[in-house]
Amino acid sequence: MAFFFNYQETTSEKAGLPPGTAVYVGEERTGPIKVTLTDYDRDNYTSLAELDEDNLKHLATTSSCTWLNIDGIHDVELIKKVGDIFNLHSLTVEDILNTRQRAKVEIYDNYIYFVARLPEFDEENKQVTLEQVSFILTDHVLLTFQEKESNAFNEVRKRIATGKGRIRKMCVDYLTYALLDSVVDNFFVVLENMGEELEELEEELLENPQPSTLHRIHLMKREMILLRKAVWPLREMIGTIQRDEVTFLGQEISFYLRDLYDHTVQVMETVETFRDIISGMLDIYLSSVSHRTNEVMKVLTIFAAIFIPLTFIAGLYGMNFNTAKSPFNMPELNWAYGYPFALGLMATVTIGMVIFFKRNKWF
Amino acid sequence: MAFFFNYQETTSEKAGLPPGTAVYVGEERTGPIKVTLTDYDRDNYTSLAELDEDNLKHLATTSSCTWLNIDGIHDVELIKKVGDIFNLHSLTVEDILNTRQRAKVEIYDNYIYFVARLPEFDEENKQVTLEQVSFILTDHVLLTFQEKESNAFNEVRKRIATGKGRIRKMCVDYLTYALLDSVVDNFFVVLENMGEELEELEEELLENPQPSTLHRIHLMKREMILLRKAVWPLREMIGTIQRDEVTFLGQEISFYLRDLYDHTVQVMETVETFRDIISGMLDIYLSSVSHRTNEVMKVLTIFAAIFIPLTFIAGLYGMNFNTAKSPFNMPELNWAYGYPFALGLMATVTIGMVIFFKRNKWF
Amino acid sequence: MAFFFNYQETTSEKAGLPPGTAVYVGEERTGPIKVTLTDYDRDNYTSLAELDEDNLKHLATTSSCTWLNIDGIHDVELIKKVGDIFNLHSLTVEDILNTRQRAKVEIYDNYIYFVARLPEFDEENKQVTLEQVSFILTDHVLLTFQEKESNAFNEVRKRIATGKGRIRKMCVDYLTYALLDSVVDNFFVVLENMGEELEELEEELLENPQPSTLHRIHLMKREMILLRKAVWPLREMIGTIQRDEVTFLGQEISFYLRDLYDHTVQVMETVETFRDIISGMLDIYLSSVSHRTNEVMKVLTIFAAIFIPLTFIAGLYGMNFNTAKSPFNMPELNWAYGYPFALGLMATVTIGMVIFFKRNKWF
Amino acid sequence: MAFFFNYQETTSEKAGLPPGTAVYVGEERTGPIKVTLTDYDRDNYTSLAELDEDNLKHLATTSSCTWLNIDGIHDVELIKKVGDIFNLHSLTVEDILNTRQRAKVEIYDNYIYFVARLPEFDEENKQVTLEQVSFILTDHVLLTFQEKESNAFNEVRKRIATGKGRIRKMCVDYLTYALLDSVVDNFFVVLENMGEELEELEEELLENPQPSTLHRIHLMKREMILLRKAVWPLREMIGTIQRDEVTFLGQEISFYLRDLYDHTVQVMETVETFRDIISGMLDIYLSSVSHRTNEVMKVLTIFAAIFIPLTFIAGLYGMNFNTAKSPFNMPELNWAYGYPFALGLMATVTIGMVIFFKRNKWF
Amino acid sequence: MAFFFNYQETTSEKAGLPPGTAVYVGEERTGPIKVTLTDYDRDNYTSLAELDEDNLKHLATTSSCTWLNIDGIHDVELIKKVGDIFNLHSLTVEDILNTRQRAKVEIYDNYIYFVARLPEFDEENKQVTLEQVSFILTDHVLLTFQEKESNAFNEVRKRIATGKGRIRKMCVDYLTYALLDSVVDNFFVVLENMGEELEELEEELLENPQPSTLHRIHLMKREMILLRKAVWPLREMIGTIQRDEVTFLGQEISFYLRDLYDHTVQVMETVETFRDIISGMLDIYLSSVSHRTNEVMKVLTIFAAIFIPLTFIAGLYGMNFNTAKSPFNMPELNWAYGYPFALGLMATVTIGMVIFFKRNKWF
Repeated sequence: MAFFFNYQETTSEKAGLPPGTAVYVGEERTGPIKVTLTDYDRDNYTSLAELDEDNLKHLATTSSCTWLNIDGIHDVELIKKVGDIFNLHSLTVEDILNTRQRAKVEIYDNYIYFVARLPEFDEENKQVTLEQVSFILTDHVLLTFQEKESNAFNEVRKRIATGKGRIRKMCVDYLTYALLDSVVDNFFVVLENMGEELEELEEELLENPQPSTLHRIHLMKREMILLRKAVWPLREMIGTIQRDEVTFLGQEISFYLRDLYDHTVQVMETVETFRDIISGMLDIYLSSVSHRTNEVMKVLTIFAAIFIPLTFIAGLYGMNFNTAKSPFNMPELNWAYGYPFALGLMATVTIGMVIFFKRNKWF
Repeated sequence: MAFFFNYQETTSEKAGLPPGTAVYVGEERTGPIKVTLTDYDRDNYTSLAELDEDNLKHLATTSSCTWLNIDGIHDVELIKKVGDIFNLHSLTVEDILNTRQRAKVEIYDNYIYFVARLPEFDEENKQVTLEQVSFILTDHVLLTFQEKESNAFNEVRKRIATGKGRIRKMCVDYLTYALLDSVVDNFFVVLENMGEELEELEEELLENPQPSTLHRIHLMKREMILLRKAVWPLREMIGTIQRDEVTFLGQEISFYLRDLYDHTVQVMETVETFRDIISGMLDIYLSSVSHRTNEVMKVLTIFAAIFIPLTFIAGLYGMNFNTAKSPFNMPELNWAYGYPFALGLMATVTIGMVIFFKRNKWF
Repeated sequence: MAFFFNYQETTSEKAGLPPGTAVYVGEERTGPIKVTLTDYDRDNYTSLAELDEDNLKHLATTSSCTWLNIDGIHDVELIKKVGDIFNLHSLTVEDILNTRQRAKVEIYDNYIYFVARLPEFDEENKQVTLEQVSFILTDHVLLTFQEKESNAFNEVRKRIATGKGRIRKMCVDYLTYALLDSVVDNFFVVLENMGEELEELEEELLENPQPSTLHRIHLMKREMILLRKAVWPLREMIGTIQRDEVTFLGQEISFYLRDLYDHTVQVMETVETFRDIISGMLDIYLSSVSHRTNEVMKVLTIFAAIFIPLTFIAGLYGMNFNTAKSPFNMPELNWAYGYPFALGLMATVTIGMVIFFKRNKWF
Repeated sequence: MAFFFNYQETTSEKAGLPPGTAVYVGEERTGPIKVTLTDYDRDNYTSLAELDEDNLKHLATTSSCTWLNIDGIHDVELIKKVGDIFNLHSLTVEDILNTRQRAKVEIYDNYIYFVARLPEFDEENKQVTLEQVSFILTDHVLLTFQEKESNAFNEVRKRIATGKGRIRKMCVDYLTYALLDSVVDNFFVVLENMGEELEELEEELLENPQPSTLHRIHLMKREMILLRKAVWPLREMIGTIQRDEVTFLGQEISFYLRDLYDHTVQVMETVETFRDIISGMLDIYLSSVSHRTNEVMKVLTIFAAIFIPLTFIAGLYGMNFNTAKSPFNMPELNWAYGYPFALGLMATVTIGMVIFFKRNKWF
Repeated sequence: MAFFFNYQETTSEKAGLPPGTAVYVGEERTGPIKVTLTDYDRDNYTSLAELDEDNLKHLATTSSCTWLNIDGIHDVELIKKVGDIFNLHSLTVEDILNTRQRAKVEIYDNYIYFVARLPEFDEENKQVTLEQVSFILTDHVLLTFQEKESNAFNEVRKRIATGKGRIRKMCVDYLTYALLDSVVDNFFVVLENMGEELEELEEELLENPQPSTLHRIHLMKREMILLRKAVWPLREMIGTIQRDEVTFLGQEISFYLRDLYDHTVQVMETVETFRDIISGMLDIYLSSVSHRTNEVMKVLTIFAAIFIPLTFIAGLYGMNFNTAKSPFNMPELNWAYGYPFALGLMATVTIGMVIFFKRNKWF
């Protein structure tokens, strides 16, 4: 339930504050902030691990492509300084710091602002976390802000460093696309893990359904609700930038964006399919559990039913009518074969009932 | 159920009356009405706690920005007088007094009329109340009407008084936005409280589900229905004023409105997510309660099943066939070790059944 | 189920007849038909209780506003005659007589035709009936047709007679609006009554749920289905006449129509909210009934479980092994304190089981 | 289940065949094919029961209106010949023969092609069948194709023959409308029958719910699924021809089409309402059956609970401790009033338990 | 569950790779790849079973129509070579190799790219598989790529070879349509098989519902989810190419595309209908199983209830009060007809209870 708790606690702290106030809203963190400044064009490539203001201003004026990535946004002053350098609207700075945004795109005069949620699957707890990534795209500078250090963009970094593929031949618009593509690919990775989990659950469901199975199904269901909440606006956002001719995004990457959009739709459909499957699993669980209970109850009830008349017969011949000397008072007790007769009666009743139950297909 | 009762009782009183009749429709109240008149521009700021008609007319003609806030609308004559001063349509006056409106925006020639519902969480009863707030926006005058005194707008008042942020630099259109932003922020506060309540409920659900848990889940569900009914039209309303170029709302606050719209969407999605989670909790409750009952029943049934054959054996040797002197009549009773034999038989049956049940995984 | 029966029976009678055939379709009625002819302008007002053809034709040519209301439409010839006087299309006459229409608006060259359903709550049977009202609006004549006499429009009549409010200052377009407003107000009255019923039901549900409670919930649910079927097309219809510039409806009443539209949306949302609440009540009913049954069953099962070993012990010492003279054959029977020992054993078992059940929180 | 079987079996036969191949797809039929050729204008009327090619070609060139109706379409050659005479596209001929189409309209250069499904209620089996009707409308010729002879269009035929109403005054466009109107009216007839069935079912449900009741509810539900599948595209189709200005359909029948559209919407809403009601009936059935079972179980359990302590007491005094001569060994057995004491004890226990159960409102 | 496993495993392998990288994504296959090159015009027809590059380039420049079909796409190099010859965008090559696409159409300057999913019903496992088919359509060349050899297009091949129908008279646009038509027809074949399966299931359901029946219903449900996921985008895709005037698709085949679109809608509606029916079957299963269990339980409980008082009576007369010499101590035991009296008492109780149960309609 941690997600919901954080969610409310933090955004409510802002109630009443003037809009555009830069307040960090998110899990409390104190770790170091990692800054990576990458500058590249077709031929050159430099990478710095610190934020040198002058350097940055200089790069902003050259024609090379510059990518500034900041992992960790709890240092409000730093983010404000970056906002000042790149002339960002106060609402944008507020949005970067508020880590509970839904995916959206906002177009300003001098830059475009994207937000997306990057999913990661925690193998240990079998849980999905969703970190926020903000993108500021200007003419040839891309700023990205992540909540904490993650490996999601390492492959892209390697491609820039090695110059493989198209990435160095095009500028930051293609880089933006490549990073969004990594985000969408991460959804596929998460869904793959969930798919494996689903498979395991399904086997458990068929072989030995436990209350814990139900619990895991419910956790899966809730995670699907969260994933869905993250994917729908992402699709919307990518649809918007693909459909509208957005500044700073060159014509030549429209094919890529269309492809990306298709992938998001695919993610969305898989989420919906998983939801359908999970709700089917819930039905199977409930009906199989109730089937098992019914089976146990039925067998035991039948078992009891067979003994009921036997016990009655035993009770019958336990009556004390034999004390009165009358030929009508339990003559069976005085028969030489009284006891075998009683046992035989019991056997007959038992066999009769078993046949009756079998015929009615009760077991 | 108070909500529905009030709702109907009051609006039906109006059936048959001519449209545009000013009738107060809402909970009966008799408390004092609080009027606050705030006049400000970039440099000056005055605040009065009473409605001075002449003063008001004078302010309406000056270029300074004027905000008249009225807490409590059950004094119909006062509202009518204000309506006359500002030349409001009779339908608008009727709408201000009818506290059961859905959020909407109506554009008249000389003013715009907004209605929204302001949520408040009552900590004691763990209940949400929704009060109506009406806004009348003209060129440089803003009128707001609330059902009763509340603290929702205090932070904005402070910002005007202290002149912090943009608020004194812009006029009543920005003020309108700031107040709507407070309304939306209040939804976040309410949702945070609901989120904590949800968390508590969830723990209770997993540890010790009670019928009262079910009752609380149902109350949460109903409150979500009411919140949803309040948020959907709010989103619609803010969408309308953001999309259409609405008079009296300057171009420069369009960024703020877009931001506000995004927040309303976020509120709406959280409400929907909570609804999904609550319905999941209902399922968990029902299945866990039925699981517990099944467990109890199963254990008791198995327990009974074990004793059934034992009681039969005891009954068997309680039969009185030993009175007849026949070697076939219960020879066991005459064995020296008859009683230990019977006890042994019982023990064997018990052990056999326990093994059988264990093997079938019945307990 | 009466509604559905009438519905089909009557419309199917028309299968195969040429379209535009004037056939009365509705409950069989023979009561008198009440005609009211009201003629008014700003200064004059006359009201006649009979249909004088010449008079009517004369009024149709004067500039005063004329409202002809007919309560009861089972006199087909009368309706046809009126249709001829006002030059109505044969399909319109057919529609007026067919009392099972959904709300709609149809624009002809010389008039507009509206249909709406007027709800009324029958206090005795706690049931909602929906009567059809047809409106024919021309330049300055309004014809209305109701299925039977009702009080729904009395307030409007009074307003015309007394000349209060705007009604005499404007012509039949405002009158049309005022009547539609009465129709919508009646929905509020009905919903208020349903709301009270819901409240009663809810109390009953929490205190003493009975099968009759379930039955009443189902009746409420069905009435909501019918109300919904009546309100949705009404909203659509009012939306159409508000959006499109409809002839004969002056520009000045567009504000009123917008207001009316908002009210219809409010009715609709209340209906939807009630549906949600009713379905929640169904869930509560079912879970509370099953909870009660489970409680009874559990208590009785535990009760039985406690007596099972006791009965076994009693049976044990009812065995007849004491007849054989062997020290191994039920020595307890020969103990001096055998009986107290047996009773003590029983007490111990009972206490042990009660503790066991308590510890497992089974009661 | 016959519907689904036929459905698939037949269309799959066509897999792989070139599109536009004329293959009869439908139930196997060998009955005679009935052809009716009707030619009429304002003054003349002729009707032939055979397909005379020359005659037909001649009529096609005159200005009189010609209606060729073919009942039975399993004679592929005949349909092809008709297609050749009227110059129909091969896809149209294919569609006429494929009796599993959904309602649609297709506009070709020289004709319009409509398909609709005509419902018929089989009184005996209480089942609905849906036959396909194809319409080819040209300038003044209308071709209609039905799967088998039916009475659905007899009333229209009579109206042409007698010249009643508008039908002879207008040409084949009005005839098309009149036939479509008959189709829609047939839906009303079917729904009336279903309504009566529903009413019967409801009474059965309240008085004596049986498994067969459930079965009938499920059949109704399935028939609603099929009706719905037939009505939705019909509404769409009529909406299309009403909205778009379709060639061959004169301006003057647009009022009629609007009316027809409203009727289809009414059919659709009734189907949806019935679906809602049926799903409510399912809930009632399940809860009333489970209520009955619970009642039986509860009564029996209480009954057993009362006897359990009685049997224990009887067992208690059946113990054989009286053989030992000790004052502690069941002194009750030696009391003069021991037996009445035991009976009194049993009576006391019984009364006590009955009071306890009554107080807990368990029966 | 195999579908989901493959799905995720394979697409996640691509996470981080540069977009447009040609990687085979699909089940691991090593079988031979089958290439078929068909060249035809109105008069000539040649077919080659190998990919001769020069030949292909030559054909690409002639005016004859060329169809290159490749069954099996796991040879990445081959696909890349084909991509180079026809100048395909790297994203297209990537999409051809990624066998988990949803149906879509993408328009490039020099070609159109379609993807669809071809369903096949595996008779043995009663399972549906969905293979991906990619189409590249240029001016007069059509490339198709399938995952493995299949018979789906054999009929079309025969029609080209024999020159039957329109196929040789038109070029590759008609061929594209013919192949898409085969895809849609295959959905009908699959649905037919599912329909038969449904019928069987329904009979089983009514006669002898087993847990395995439930399992099969759930499998059907899941397959419907997958089919639905394949059909919806297909309909969308065909709708797009029918609505927009797509290059390379001549005007004359628009009628065919409209027809194809209607068929897809029909497939979709059948899938939805099947889903409705399956969910109804689930309800029937659950209610019939619970009905059966209830019946068994009820009969057994009644059976037990009858024996309970009998056993009590037997126990009563098994008490040992006869040892005390008192006239009040079980005088029945000393009666001459005590035993017959006791048996008679038992018989009376039994008959009384049977009558009671019958009267309450408990069995």
